Amino acid sequence: MEPTTFILFGATGDLAKRKIYPALYNLFVDGKLPQAFSLIGLGRREWSDESFQANVEQSLRQFSRREAKDAGSLKDFLRVFRYSVLDIGRKDDYLKLLKLTESREDELRIPQNRLFYLSVGPEYFETIAANIQDSGLGSTNGWKRLVIEKPFGHDLQSARDLNRKLSKAFAEEEIFRIDHYLGKPMVQRLESLQQANPVIQALWTNRYIANVQITANESVGVEERAGYYDHVGAVRDMFQNHMLQLMMMAAIHLPHDSTSEEVRFKKKKVMESLEVLQKEDVIASVIRGQYQEGTIQGKPVVGYASEPGIAPDSMNDTFIAAKLQIDNSYWRGVPFYIRTGKRMKDKSTRIVVEFKDPLKQVSTNNDDHIAPNLLVIDIGPNEGITLQLNAKDPGHKGGFKPSHIDLHASEQNSPEAYENLIYDALTGNSTFFAHWDEVELSWQWVQPILDAFEENLVPLHSYAAGTYGPAESDALLANDGFHWWFDSKPEQNTDISEGVQYAYNANH
Amino acid sequence: MEPTTFILFGATGDLAKRKIYPALYNLFVDGKLPQAFSLIGLGRREWSDESFQANVEQSLRQFSRREAKDAGSLKDFLRVFRYSVLDIGRKDDYLKLLKLTESREDELRIPQNRLFYLSVGPEYFETIAANIQDSGLGSTNGWKRLVIEKPFGHDLQSARDLNRKLSKAFAEEEIFRIDHYLGKPMVQRLESLQQANPVIQALWTNRYIANVQITANESVGVEERAGYYDHVGAVRDMFQNHMLQLMMMAAIHLPHDSTSEEVRFKKKKVMESLEVLQKEDVIASVIRGQYQEGTIQGKPVVGYASEPGIAPDSMNDTFIAAKLQIDNSYWRGVPFYIRTGKRMKDKSTRIVVEFKDPLKQVSTNNDDHIAPNLLVIDIGPNEGITLQLNAKDPGHKGGFKPSHIDLHASEQNSPEAYENLIYDALTGNSTFFAHWDEVELSWQWVQPILDAFEENLVPLHSYAAGTYGPAESDALLANDGFHWWFDSKPEQNTDISEGVQYAYNANH
Repeated sequence: MEPTTFILFGATGDLAKRKIYPALYNLFVDGKLPQAFSLIGLGRREWSDESFQANVEQSLRQFSRREAKDAGSLKDFLRVFRYSVLDIGRKDDYLKLLKLTESREDELRIPQNRLFYLSVGPEYFETIAANIQDSGLGSTNGWKRLVIEKPFGHDLQSARDLNRKLSKAFAEEEIFRIDHYLGKPMVQRLESLQQANPVIQALWTNRYIANVQITANESVGVEERAGYYDHVGAVRDMFQNHMLQLMMMAAIHLPHDSTSEEVRFKKKKVMESLEVLQKEDVIASVIRGQYQEGTIQGKPVVGYASEPGIAPDSMNDTFIAAKLQIDNSYWRGVPFYIRTGKRMKDKSTRIVVEFKDPLKQVSTNNDDHIAPNLLVIDIGPNEGITLQLNAKDPGHKGGFKPSHIDLHASEQNSPEAYENLIYDALTGNSTFFAHWDEVELSWQWVQPILDAFEENLVPLHSYAAGTYGPAESDALLANDGFHWWFDSKPEQNTDISEGVQYAYNANH
Repeated sequence: MEPTTFILFGATGDLAKRKIYPALYNLFVDGKLPQAFSLIGLGRREWSDESFQANVEQSLRQFSRREAKDAGSLKDFLRVFRYSVLDIGRKDDYLKLLKLTESREDELRIPQNRLFYLSVGPEYFETIAANIQDSGLGSTNGWKRLVIEKPFGHDLQSARDLNRKLSKAFAEEEIFRIDHYLGKPMVQRLESLQQANPVIQALWTNRYIANVQITANESVGVEERAGYYDHVGAVRDMFQNHMLQLMMMAAIHLPHDSTSEEVRFKKKKVMESLEVLQKEDVIASVIRGQYQEGTIQGKPVVGYASEPGIAPDSMNDTFIAAKLQIDNSYWRGVPFYIRTGKRMKDKSTRIVVEFKDPLKQVSTNNDDHIAPNLLVIDIGPNEGITLQLNAKDPGHKGGFKPSHIDLHASEQNSPEAYENLIYDALTGNSTFFAHWDEVELSWQWVQPILDAFEENLVPLHSYAAGTYGPAESDALLANDGFHWWFDSKPEQNTDISEGVQYAYNANH
C-alpha cells in the first residue's frame, strides 16, 4: 500500500468517533494500513495532539468491534495522529494545515499522497474543496482523493450544482462517494457470488427470475433527526441512494475478473435502462406512507406527526414502496420491488430473488403446491445468503417442502462497512463507491417522484407503527400475483423460522 | 392401500432375511402396509408357520434398522405370516399354494390382489412364472404383480429370452424389476430435486454442465461370489444395470408432476439417444481393469487372479470406466463418465455434476484460479447433496475459495432402498423400477462392449488394489481436460475434507 496522509475534516464529530476511528484501528490490527501513514484530524475545538489521541482511544474502547487491549499496538496506532484547529471558512487554517501536512510527510517520508475525508455536513463540501485547491493542499506530486458521504444533493439540480463545484478541485476518479450500504459484507458478497459462480450467473436473468424484492425496514422512528428527516423523507434519505444502489448491485452482470470500471459501467447501464416514470404515472407504481401510532415489540409508540420536532400536518413520507422495471434483455418483464420504511414491524435489510416456475402453468395437478425457489441475501442485522429449494422425503412420499440452505457460514466479527470502504479508498479501488453517473441518474429517475409527492399527485397512506407499511404496498405486488416474502403475520411471532413458515404457507 | 397377499418365493433365503423382512417390518411400523395383508412364505425347507415366524423375528432382531422391541406390534406384524413348502418345479405345490392363498384371502377378506416376490435365482424365474399361470394363481379378479431382482439376463439375447417367457404370464406393467440403486434415498432425492426446483432444472443442460461423473467404487474384492462374478465381471454385475440406471436418472428431465409413465418414457428416450458404440470403437471410450495385489486401509490383499475360486489366467474385468455421449439437445457435448470397480481405495457411490465456466476462456487474468461449481450427490455410504460454489471473503480481498453447501441435512435412520421399493410395488408405482425397455436398451448398448471384451479388442489393464483403478481411467478424462473429482491422493489420507482440498488444488 502506498504511503498516505489521511486528512480528516470533522475529526471531533460523531461519525469519526463511531465509525472512522474504529475502522482505521481494525485495519491497522489487520495490517491493512499503509506502513507509512499520517493522520491529521481537523476540527474547531482547541485540542492538542494528546487530547486528540486520548479522544480517539476513548472512541475505540467504546465502538471498536475488537477490543483495543494491546497497549503497545494501540500506541503504535495513535502515534501518527496529529490534530490541527481548523475553521472551515478560514483560508489561513488551510495554509497551516498544508505546513503541518508537509512537515509530517518529510518526517515520515511520505510522498504527497493525500486523502481528504470530509466527515462534515454537505453544506461544507464546496467550501472545503475550494480551499483545498486554493491553499495548494491539492497540488500534490502524488495522488489526492476526496472521500465524502451522502447526501449528495437534495434533488437533481442541487446534486448537479454540488458536483460541478467539487469537480473544480477534484476529478471524478479522485472523488470517493461513500454509500455505506455498498460496504456491507453481504452486498460485497452478492457481487462475488455472481462473479465467481457460473451457476448463479446462469440464473441471473428474466428467463429464470420472476421478481426481485429489496427491503430495508427500520423499526426505529424519526429519532433525533426530526428537523432533517422531515425535510427529506424516506425517498431522499434511503430510496434515492441506498435502495437504488442495492438495486444496481443486484441487477448488474459481472464476469469474474471485472474491474471497478466495469462495475461502474454496468451500474450506469442499469440506471439508463430503468423505465422512466412520468410525474403523472408515479401513482401507479410508487406507494408513499406515513406511520401512525402503533406498537413496536409490545411498546406503544406515537405517530410521526406527533414526534417532537415534526409539524402536526407534515406530509412527509416515512415509507416508500416502488415497482421498477429495467428494460434490458436480462431484466425485461422482471419487476424489482423496493421498499423502505420507519417504524416497521422488524428491522431487516434483504434482497429476495424469486425464481420462476416455468412448468407451473402446465401443471394439471391441483395438489401441486410447491414453493418457489428463492435466493435470499440477508444484509442486516442478520447476514447470510440462503437458497430455498424444495425437498421431498422419499420415505414418506409426501409433498415437497421448502428447505433452506445457508450459503454463507456467517462469520464472527467480520469487518464493518467502513473498514471495507476506507481500505478501498486508501488503495484507490472505487468499485464499491457511488459514482457521479449513478448519483445523477438516480436523482434523475427519482425527480418525478419528488415532484409528484410535492404536488400531491400521490396519496399519502397511513400505516400503523409495527406493521409492514400501508396495505397498498402489499397490493402493489398482489396486482402482479406476488407478495412480499418473509413478512410475518401479525398474530405470529417474528422468529425467523416462523417467518419462513408463513412465507411458504402464504403461497398456498 | 389395497388389501394384498404377498407371496414370497425364497422365504428361507438370505435376501429375504437381510432385506425383505426388515423392510416389511419397518413399513408396518410406519403404517405403510395395507390394513388387510397376508404374507405367504415359500421354500423347500419343512418349516411350520411358527418356525417361519420365529425365523422372521430373528431376522428383524439382526437386520432391522429399527429395533423390534414392542412385543405387541411385533406379534401383530407376524400374525399374518404363513409358510408353505414349495418345490419350484412341482405343480402340485402351486395348487396347494393357491388353496392356502384363497383360504387366507377369505379369512382376511382380501380381494385377489397378489404380489409374487421372486427372491430366488434368475434360473427359476421362468418356471415359477409358468407355474403361477398354469396353477390358476395368476388368474385373479384383482391385480397381480411380479417382483424380480437382477440379473435380468446375461446378454442381450438371454435377456430377451427371459422377458419373452415372463411376459407369457405377466404383462409388462405387472412386472416390477428391482434395481435397488433406484431405491436408494439419494437417487430418489435426485429425481425430486429436479422435479421441484426450477433452479436445478434450469441448470440441467449442456448450456451449463461441462460433464457428469458417476462413480460406484467398492473397496471389497470378489468375496464369496467368485464363481458367479468371474462369469459376469463389473460390466454385467454393475455397469449394465446400476450404473446405466443412475445415468438415466441423472440425465432425464422431469416436470414436477411427472408420472411413472413419464419417467419411464424419458429414461427410454435417454437410452435411445446414447451414441451407439461399435465393437471396434469400444477401445476408445471404455477402460477395463483387473485388480492386482495391493493395500486396502493398511492391509495387504491379494490380486484378483489369486482369489479363491478364480482361474489364475482369468481375463475378467473388476473395473470398468466408460465415456458416454447422449445425443440429444440437452446433453450433446456433455460427456458422462461412468466407473465402477472392486478393491478401490474407498467405498463410495456418487454423482458429480461439473458446471461450465462460460467466461473462463475470455479471462485475461492469469491469477484467476476459480474452482468450477459442482453439484455432488453422495449416494452411499454417506448420503448428501452438496453444491460447491465459490465465496470470497470481502474483508480480505483474497482469491475465491470453494465453499460447500449441504443441500440435504442427512436424516438419521432413513428408510432403506427395499422399504421404498416394496412400498412402491405394493402401491403399484413403478417409477423407481427397471422397465423392460430400459433393460433391453441397456443390454443392447452394452453388447458391443461384451463382444469387444470377449474378443480381446480392449486391453485388460492392471491396477493395484487400493487405488482408483488403472491410469487409463484418469487419462480418459484428462483427454477432455477433466479429472475425476474427489479422488484423494495416495499420500493423503482419505478424510473427506482432504479429498475436497485435493480436488480443488488439482484444478490449478
